[in-house]
Amino acid sequence: MRVWFKGVFDMVMEHIEVTYTVKVFDIGAGLPIIVLNEFEARQRDLFIGDRVELAYKGRTMSAIVDTSPTHVKEGEVGAFIEVVDALKLGPGDRITVKPLTKPASIDYIKRKLDGSALTPPEIDEIVKDLMLSKLSEAELAVFVAAIYSRGLNAEETVSLTESIMRSGDQLQLGVHPIVDKHCIGGIAGNRTTMIVVPILAAAGAYMPKTSSRAITSAAGTADTMEVLCSVNFRIDEIRDIVLKTHGCIAWGGGAHLAPADDKLIRIRYPFRLDPRGMLLASIMAKKKAVGSEFTVIDIPIGRGTKMEDPSRAKELAKDFIDIGNRLNIKTQVFLTDGSDPIGYGVGPALECKDVLEVLQGSGPQDLFNKSCLLAGSLLEVSGLAQKGEGYNTAVGIVKSGKAFEKMREIVEAQGGSPHLRIEDLPIGKYRAELYAEAEGRVEYISNKKIARIARAAGAPKVKGAGVVLKCEQGDKIKKGDAVIEIYADSEGSLDYALKVAQEIQPVELQKIVLGTYDRSMF
Amino acid sequence: MRVWFKGVFDMVMEHIEVTYTVKVFDIGAGLPIIVLNEFEARQRDLFIGDRVELAYKGRTMSAIVDTSPTHVKEGEVGAFIEVVDALKLGPGDRITVKPLTKPASIDYIKRKLDGSALTPPEIDEIVKDLMLSKLSEAELAVFVAAIYSRGLNAEETVSLTESIMRSGDQLQLGVHPIVDKHCIGGIAGNRTTMIVVPILAAAGAYMPKTSSRAITSAAGTADTMEVLCSVNFRIDEIRDIVLKTHGCIAWGGGAHLAPADDKLIRIRYPFRLDPRGMLLASIMAKKKAVGSEFTVIDIPIGRGTKMEDPSRAKELAKDFIDIGNRLNIKTQVFLTDGSDPIGYGVGPALECKDVLEVLQGSGPQDLFNKSCLLAGSLLEVSGLAQKGEGYNTAVGIVKSGKAFEKMREIVEAQGGSPHLRIEDLPIGKYRAELYAEAEGRVEYISNKKIARIARAAGAPKVKGAGVVLKCEQGDKIKKGDAVIEIYADSEGSLDYALKVAQEIQPVELQKIVLGTYDRSMF
Repeated sequence: MRVWFKGVFDMVMEHIEVTYTVKVFDIGAGLPIIVLNEFEARQRDLFIGDRVELAYKGRTMSAIVDTSPTHVKEGEVGAFIEVVDALKLGPGDRITVKPLTKPASIDYIKRKLDGSALTPPEIDEIVKDLMLSKLSEAELAVFVAAIYSRGLNAEETVSLTESIMRSGDQLQLGVHPIVDKHCIGGIAGNRTTMIVVPILAAAGAYMPKTSSRAITSAAGTADTMEVLCSVNFRIDEIRDIVLKTHGCIAWGGGAHLAPADDKLIRIRYPFRLDPRGMLLASIMAKKKAVGSEFTVIDIPIGRGTKMEDPSRAKELAKDFIDIGNRLNIKTQVFLTDGSDPIGYGVGPALECKDVLEVLQGSGPQDLFNKSCLLAGSLLEVSGLAQKGEGYNTAVGIVKSGKAFEKMREIVEAQGGSPHLRIEDLPIGKYRAELYAEAEGRVEYISNKKIARIARAAGAPKVKGAGVVLKCEQGDKIKKGDAVIEIYADSEGSLDYALKVAQEIQPVELQKIVLGTYDRSMF
Repeated sequence: MRVWFKGVFDMVMEHIEVTYTVKVFDIGAGLPIIVLNEFEARQRDLFIGDRVELAYKGRTMSAIVDTSPTHVKEGEVGAFIEVVDALKLGPGDRITVKPLTKPASIDYIKRKLDGSALTPPEIDEIVKDLMLSKLSEAELAVFVAAIYSRGLNAEETVSLTESIMRSGDQLQLGVHPIVDKHCIGGIAGNRTTMIVVPILAAAGAYMPKTSSRAITSAAGTADTMEVLCSVNFRIDEIRDIVLKTHGCIAWGGGAHLAPADDKLIRIRYPFRLDPRGMLLASIMAKKKAVGSEFTVIDIPIGRGTKMEDPSRAKELAKDFIDIGNRLNIKTQVFLTDGSDPIGYGVGPALECKDVLEVLQGSGPQDLFNKSCLLAGSLLEVSGLAQKGEGYNTAVGIVKSGKAFEKMREIVEAQGGSPHLRIEDLPIGKYRAELYAEAEGRVEYISNKKIARIARAAGAPKVKGAGVVLKCEQGDKIKKGDAVIEIYADSEGSLDYALKVAQEIQPVELQKIVLGTYDRSMF
């Protein structure tokens, strides 16, 4: 056999496409993964973790290579759910697989790791490659680590914010004033958004609020609002709802707002690495994407929150204000007490119950006060209340029933029933109580543990599952008093949640004996 | 339902074990992965990427969680190959799954990322958790990134070396002198080890050499030696072979020497992040594990090598000597010309052919010279040759036939046939040549591209597959001259390798026209 060698001068990258027969694996890895036969992959110079481009019927996507010695035969390619869904594949389909060259953004990530500041186009390239799944989880982990270790200056933070914003759709409302709020999270039952939005909308502001679903909590605002109506809207649908009612509470993920951020959050989660520049960009990108002019940020501090150290919380507050200014978003920050859950209910329907009660003038006082404080600040900064009068104006809007009326309008515009009757809420039918075995004063109620129990009961997927707190920090409880109630939709889930509750002990009583000693020690 | 709440004072971590039925997935991810039903995982507070401890019949291991909405039902657990093999599972077996708390080593990794130096116990803990698969790929990536960005001081490098060494077995020979060599790699056909070992063994030194298999190359030394005999030995078997013959060439992976290093290499590979401290620790741990007293390090420099920059290579050389001293290993470093492949053959059997020819006094001159240079240095430093006489002594040992004789002994001790006849080598039956289309002087032969073609032909798995170089840097070639030959064991593999060769163009001719311009540019 004779083949002619051309003697070309420049480096040419190999890009031989090979066609394979699809074998569907019904497994999700949160990343687009294909499985090749091990020997064949070696021959094609593809290794576990390498990237390839897949093509099928004019659709293309990047994917990451995994290998199997036997389950995938030569000529076959196993496709995980993410690939099957994106390319709309079925078993036996023929797809082409082409090696991808190393993306330039890997070099930029290395440069950040070396301590260089990145330019706006470089940051944009990284965010684009992230969106195209051209960067592996480990490479993104290095990006997060580089930012954690080297920091982002204000210019880089603004660039990252704008790149994340441009990764999705942007809302163009053409009205004024547009207000927004954000809480950096971690507090069970903290459903202020569902109270602040109707107050501001009733006062005449526009509040196109997008919220997240629960990641580690028992319910995100989107999960809770979904008890009443749909939260899954495209950006044009959000526009219509807001122009009609002045407010909306939608799921950010459905609206395709700043989707790069969801991917970055997914990477940051397992490390608990939360580099400040990335946190700022993450939040502000979503504010910018909906065109906010005024925003209020709630930073809960204290034991068990993301910000246990008040001085770090203050620095973060200053950064929010600085980055907000650079993005033309007037930003006010509240440091709030986050050491205790807010409200009574934890879980979508149970939190919804607290919200509806507050909007009707009763319900948990802490949730009412905090909501009016945040709403009042937005009313003042957007010129809808006199300086110093925001809180009282917000209280008045709730007490007059206008906020509840506005909530009915918003829920109806989002496809729900406007009746908003508490007795209609789908609270779990199975209920158990956790009783105190000894008497004492409640020292601490762990947000994380309460959320954990609610999740064990089935929240957020089971809307009616969750926990109701029967005590607060400082309460004196007697032996036999209920400390929490658990709700679930099946005996099995209730049993499991109780087992978890007994195991993790969510409520701490004041310590009297601070240590015990064994006789043998003396 | 009533459950008593105990009011315990200290934080208790949840550790509820749940038992699942095994479903076997014949997929390898290079990591121990289990797949849980998505809803059930949420309820158990387990997320993609979380770690769990698996237990089955008294065996336990850590694994990483993946989820599937439908393919794994509630109560089932899918197990990837790595888990199936480690726990010896079959379909339908019942295993328990328990969430693992965050390992302390994650905090140490964070501290390194913050710029702190780590203590020996901290480094040891990270290496232990790595070995127990308690750290995810992304977390290990952050470890590599932290070392890349913050560096390791000499004490940390020595600690890392010792921890990696302790991750596996150690060879206790009780003889003297024990010598070793290492090449930092990347050069096709660079099979000096198979010549240096018999020279040193013939001269009376002990050389328990462990080598790697190919990762991105066409053949590792272990793959090439395996053409002649087994390379898969336990540490006690290596001991017996070395005490009998003075030498051995075994696969390091089979000997369970410094296994933590293999895991670190796997992490570093996709990033091409090669932090110096980690590279040093990686190599020296293996030297220390076999009890080396003297070692020679070969650092190929020049275009296309791992060390394109000679000043970086010199710094690395100094570090090798310094770390060697601290570990009581007398270390000498050679910077060698790595811009060109060594020898003619690339691929296990073809490289073996070069080696056997050199040992019989013929074969490629570059391989012969380089091997005698490295061997000579070890002879001098270990006192087996006069200063300045090492190279000549090595040449004499080869020319006298003693090195070849020693190689026969070693091969026989490793279970192979001592005849070592070149005509017995399993060279691929299918052969093709790549011809020059134009005349010119050979400017550059890319090691990476030659290796790529040999792999496309089936190397290293197919022992007889590979490439034979028909020209060298500086040669004048005419139109129609063969530049490389390709060998394979099937028509299909040969075709594919030829296609790759034509695509990537492994041989560069001297440029005459340095650019072309379009008329419209003037």
